[in-house]
Amino acid sequence: MAKLLNDRDLEFQLYEVLDTESLLQRPRYAEHDRAIFDATLNTARDIAAEYFAPHNQKGDANEPTFDGEKVTLIPETQPAWNAFAEAGFLASHHDFDDGGSQLPEVVLRASMAYFNAANVSSTAYSFLTIGAANLLKSFGSDELKGKYLPSMLDGRYSGTMALTEPGQGSALGDLRTMAKPADDGSYRLFGNKMYISGGDHELTDNIVHMVLARIEGAPAGVRGISLFLVPKFHVNDDGTRGDRNDVALAGLLHKMGYRNTTSTVLNFGEKDGAVGYLVGEPNKGLGYMFQMMNEARIGVGLGAAAMGYQSYLEALDYARDRPQGRLPGNKNPDAPQVKIVEHADVRRMLLMQKAYAEGSLALCLYASTLVEDAHTAKDESERKAAAELLDLITPMVKTWPSKYGVIASDLGIQVLGGAGYTREYPLEQLYRDNRLNPIHEGTEGIQGIDLLGRKLGPKGGDGYAEFQRRIQATLDEAANLDTCGPLASQLTQALDTLKSVTSDLQKQLAADPDHGLSNATMYLDMFGKVLVGWIWLKQAMAAEKALAAGASGSEEQFYQGKVHAARYFMNWELAPLDGYARLLANGNRDNLDMQNDWF
Amino acid sequence: MAKLLNDRDLEFQLYEVLDTESLLQRPRYAEHDRAIFDATLNTARDIAAEYFAPHNQKGDANEPTFDGEKVTLIPETQPAWNAFAEAGFLASHHDFDDGGSQLPEVVLRASMAYFNAANVSSTAYSFLTIGAANLLKSFGSDELKGKYLPSMLDGRYSGTMALTEPGQGSALGDLRTMAKPADDGSYRLFGNKMYISGGDHELTDNIVHMVLARIEGAPAGVRGISLFLVPKFHVNDDGTRGDRNDVALAGLLHKMGYRNTTSTVLNFGEKDGAVGYLVGEPNKGLGYMFQMMNEARIGVGLGAAAMGYQSYLEALDYARDRPQGRLPGNKNPDAPQVKIVEHADVRRMLLMQKAYAEGSLALCLYASTLVEDAHTAKDESERKAAAELLDLITPMVKTWPSKYGVIASDLGIQVLGGAGYTREYPLEQLYRDNRLNPIHEGTEGIQGIDLLGRKLGPKGGDGYAEFQRRIQATLDEAANLDTCGPLASQLTQALDTLKSVTSDLQKQLAADPDHGLSNATMYLDMFGKVLVGWIWLKQAMAAEKALAAGASGSEEQFYQGKVHAARYFMNWELAPLDGYARLLANGNRDNLDMQNDWF
Repeated sequence: MAKLLNDRDLEFQLYEVLDTESLLQRPRYAEHDRAIFDATLNTARDIAAEYFAPHNQKGDANEPTFDGEKVTLIPETQPAWNAFAEAGFLASHHDFDDGGSQLPEVVLRASMAYFNAANVSSTAYSFLTIGAANLLKSFGSDELKGKYLPSMLDGRYSGTMALTEPGQGSALGDLRTMAKPADDGSYRLFGNKMYISGGDHELTDNIVHMVLARIEGAPAGVRGISLFLVPKFHVNDDGTRGDRNDVALAGLLHKMGYRNTTSTVLNFGEKDGAVGYLVGEPNKGLGYMFQMMNEARIGVGLGAAAMGYQSYLEALDYARDRPQGRLPGNKNPDAPQVKIVEHADVRRMLLMQKAYAEGSLALCLYASTLVEDAHTAKDESERKAAAELLDLITPMVKTWPSKYGVIASDLGIQVLGGAGYTREYPLEQLYRDNRLNPIHEGTEGIQGIDLLGRKLGPKGGDGYAEFQRRIQATLDEAANLDTCGPLASQLTQALDTLKSVTSDLQKQLAADPDHGLSNATMYLDMFGKVLVGWIWLKQAMAAEKALAAGASGSEEQFYQGKVHAARYFMNWELAPLDGYARLLANGNRDNLDMQNDWF
Repeated sequence: MAKLLNDRDLEFQLYEVLDTESLLQRPRYAEHDRAIFDATLNTARDIAAEYFAPHNQKGDANEPTFDGEKVTLIPETQPAWNAFAEAGFLASHHDFDDGGSQLPEVVLRASMAYFNAANVSSTAYSFLTIGAANLLKSFGSDELKGKYLPSMLDGRYSGTMALTEPGQGSALGDLRTMAKPADDGSYRLFGNKMYISGGDHELTDNIVHMVLARIEGAPAGVRGISLFLVPKFHVNDDGTRGDRNDVALAGLLHKMGYRNTTSTVLNFGEKDGAVGYLVGEPNKGLGYMFQMMNEARIGVGLGAAAMGYQSYLEALDYARDRPQGRLPGNKNPDAPQVKIVEHADVRRMLLMQKAYAEGSLALCLYASTLVEDAHTAKDESERKAAAELLDLITPMVKTWPSKYGVIASDLGIQVLGGAGYTREYPLEQLYRDNRLNPIHEGTEGIQGIDLLGRKLGPKGGDGYAEFQRRIQATLDEAANLDTCGPLASQLTQALDTLKSVTSDLQKQLAADPDHGLSNATMYLDMFGKVLVGWIWLKQAMAAEKALAAGASGSEEQFYQGKVHAARYFMNWELAPLDGYARLLANGNRDNLDMQNDWF
C-alpha cells in the first residue's frame, strides 16, 4: 500500500501556498505555534495509518449486519473510533473551555484528509459526530448543550444528520416527519428517514440524531422545517443512560462502497413518538442546517480529494514498479522492458491524477481558510468578504473534487489495467468509495442550480465580486514571472470567458428561470475549472519562487512537478472551455427541449 | 427491471439505417428472409430474459469459488449455458455444413447484445467459446477441427483465449510460455497464464484453451509466438473424454464486476508438460490472433454499448417513475412534485446516456456490416474496402463504447442518486461490470497507438481514404436536408479539424515516434467523436426521412428522439474538439516532458 497522502505536499499547501503561520497572530491562536500544527498532522497521519488503514479492505469485504436486535461492525472499527476520540480530534477545533484545543480549521482539515485517505467508511462515524456537535454547539440551548455536547466531544456519544426521507431526496422542502409538541416542552417525532449514515451501531453509548422535521401546523415547504435533537437512548438528569427512545432501525442499505459506514432507514415514532428536543427556534431548521452546510460540503470535497489523491499515489507506486513493453521508438524485442511510468500515456494518466488530486486538496484547504477567516479574521470586512466568497465557491468546492477525484480514482484503475480491476489491489475500492461523493450533500445538479440560481442570481453578488478581485490580484502578480506569466495569460483568457458567460446566463436567468438554469451543471463545471486553475496558478507561483531561491535535489523535483502540473492544467483542462462557452452563451436549449416521450 | 434494450431501435438500426435486407441478395443468404432474422432476434431476447437476466444480480453477489478441486458457479449458470447452446447461438454464423445457420454477422451481433444487456458475466463463457471456435475454424488443421470443433459448436465443450501472463499484459511479445516439440508431432507446454476468463468451470465436458506460446528456439518478440490448442481433458480417438491434461487452476481472481465469469490463473506443465497442438504454422500465432482481434474488439465495444444502453433504460424508467421537487420557475411549495425526468439536468444526463448508448450500439452494428462485407460482398474491391475501413476504425469501435458506455453507466448511477449507489438497484453493478471494457482486449492507450502508429502511420492508408470517402458521401447527401443539413455542417467542420490534426500528427510521427504517439489517446478520442458523429448523422437522416413520410404517434416520437440526440451530439460532444485539436496540432509535449521524479 502507498503512503497516506504526501506530507511534503501538505506542508507546501499549509506554509508556502497558504500562510497558515499568520494565524498565530490572531488572539485565538496566541498559545499555538507551528510545532503544534505539525504535531497534530503527524498524530493524525499515525493514527490513520495504525488504526484505520489496516482494516479498510476488511470493512469493505465484511459490511455491517443487522440481526434485528443490533448492528455488528468488524471489530477493528471500535479501536479506530477510540483512537480518534482519545487523540482529541472530535473536539480539536472547539474552545479550550469546551475541552477543545482551538485548532485552526485548515490544520484540522489537513489532518482529517489522512483519515479519508486511509479508510473513509470507518472515519465517517467521527466526521458525522463532528458535524452534529457543530450544529448543537451553534444553535442548541445551554441546557441541551450541557446534556449532550461533552459526550459528543469526548467520544462517548456519536452523532448523525437525519435529513433525507424515502419520498424526498434533494427536495428537502417536501419532508414529512412530523413533530408534535408535548407538555414538557419537548416534542414527539413521527416519520421515516433514509440514507442516514451512522444511524445505528454499537460504537458508542448513545447516538444523537440531528433531525429535520415539521412541527404540526408549520408552513409547507422549506419555511416550515425545524431542527430536533433526538437521542437513541434517553439521558437521565444525572447523565446516565436511560431507556431506548422510540427510534428504530428499519434496515441497513447495501452500498456500492463506503461499506463500513452503516447506511440506515430509521423509523421515528413507531410507538408513542420519538422524544425530540427543538434546537434553536421553530421553522428555522433548514437555515441552521445550511449554515453548517458549507462546512459539510467542504468535508465532502476533501474526502473526494483525499481518495483521489490516494488513487494517484497507489497508481504511481504501481507504475514505478511494474515493467511492461518498450517505448515506441525501440523496436528491439531483446531490449529490457521499461517501467510503465515511462510510457507517455501512463504519464498522461498520472499527470491528470496529480492535477485533479493535488488541485482538489489545495482547493479544499483554501476553502478552509475562508471558513477560518469568516470566523477569526481581525476586521469585520475581511470576515464578511471571506464568508461571501466561501458561499460562492462552496458548490465548486463540493463538486469539483467529487467529479475529478472520482476520475482520478477511475484513472488509477486504468493505470493498473487488469490488476486495477481486481480486488487484490486497492484501486477499485477507492473508486467505489469515492463514487458516493458526487451524490451526497447535494448532487452535482443541485450544486449547479445553487451556484447559478442562488449564489449568483440575475445580479451576481458580493461573493462573485470578491472572487474576481482575488483572482485578478493573483493574475497581476503572476504576469511578470518567467514561468507563471504565460500560465497567467492562459487563465486570464479563461476568466474572461467565464465572466462573459456568467453575464449571458444572468440575462437568460432573468428572462426565464427554467431556461436560465437548464445548463447550470455545465456552467458549474466551467467555473470549477477556472477556480482550480487559479489554485494551480497559486501553487505554481509558490514553486517558481522556491526554484528561483535555489531549491535542489528532491526539493527541486517537487517544485518542477508543481509547475508542470499547472502547465498541464492550463493547456489541457482549460482547452475545452471555449467550445462549451459558446453553447452556454447562446442559451443552448437541447436539455430543455428534449421531450419525455422522445427518450 | 427495465426491458432488455429497445426492440424498436434494433429494428431501426438493422432495417432503416443499415440495409440488412440487401444481404438476402448474396448467395450465402439466399435461403434466408427477414422473418428468420427477426425470429433470431426474438429468440435471443427471450432466452436472455428467461435464462440470463434473472440471475444477473445473484451471480454478482455470489462469485465463483474454488475448493482446490473444482470451481462452483451459482446453479443458474448451467441452464443459461444450455439454453444458449441449444438455441444454436454457438454455431449460428457457421456454415450449414458445420451445423450452423449461416446467420449474417450483423444479425448475430444484434442478437448477442440482448445477452450482454441481460447478464454479461454469465454470457462470457459462450462468447469466449465462439471466439475460440472461430480461431480453430480459420486456422486449425482438418484433423484438429474434426476432433474439437463440433463439440465447441454444440455446447459440449467451451473455449478460452489464453494470451496474458503475469509478467506481460499489453506487451504480448514478451510472453514466456514455452512449447517443446514431442515425438508424436504435438507439443508440451510450460508456463503460467493470468486473467484467463472462463479458464475453469464445470459447465462443459471439456475446455479448449487457445494458447499463445513460444516454441523452443523461436525468435524473440512478436515474431516467435505460436498458437496452440490445449484441452483441459485429453480427447480419445473415439471422441470420449480421456484423462486430465497437465493444465491446473492455480487460483481465481476477484474482480470489481463481471463476477460470474471466472478469471483464472492457469499453470501449464506443472508435471510433464501440457499436451498442446499447433494451430496453423509455427511463429504465426500472433498474426492469427490479430485476424480474430477485430471481431473480438467489436464484441467488447458491443458489450459496453449494451451495458451502457441498459444503464440508460434503467435510469429512464426510474426518472419517469420517481417524483421529486418542482421546476425552478415554480415557487409554490404546495404544488405537486414532478417526475425527475422533467428536471433539465436529469434530461441532460438521460440525453447524454441516449447519445452514448444508442450511438455506441449503432457504431458496433455498422462495424459488423464491415465484417460481413469483408467476407461476403460481391466484388473483391468492395470486400477489400470494407476490410480496410474495419481495420482503421476498430480501435474506435473497441474504445468509444467502452469509454462512453461506462460514462452512460456512471450517469445512470447519478440519475438515481442515493438509490443508484445502493445494490438494491441495478446501476452500480452495470457500472462495475462495464468498467472492464476499457481494459481488456487492448486498453485505450494501446488502441490509440494502434490507430495512430499502425493503422494510419506517417502515410495514412487505404482505410483512412475509404473513411473520408464514405463520410463525405453522407455529408453530401445530408447537405440539402432541412433538419440534417445544419447537423452535417457541424460535422463537416469537425471532420476538417480531424483531417488537419491527422496530417499534423503524421508529420510529428515521422519526425519522432515517441513524440508523435505521446498524445495518441486524445487523438483516438477525437477520431471517435467524429466517427460517432457520422453514425448519429446517418440515424438522423433515416429519422428525417421517416418523419417526412408522415410518421405519427409513438413512431414520430421515436424519430424525433433520434434527431434530437443527433443535435445534442453535434452541439455538445463536438464542442471541445477545437480546443484539443490546437494542442495536438502544436505537438503539445506535456505528457512527454513530465519526468518520473516530478510526480
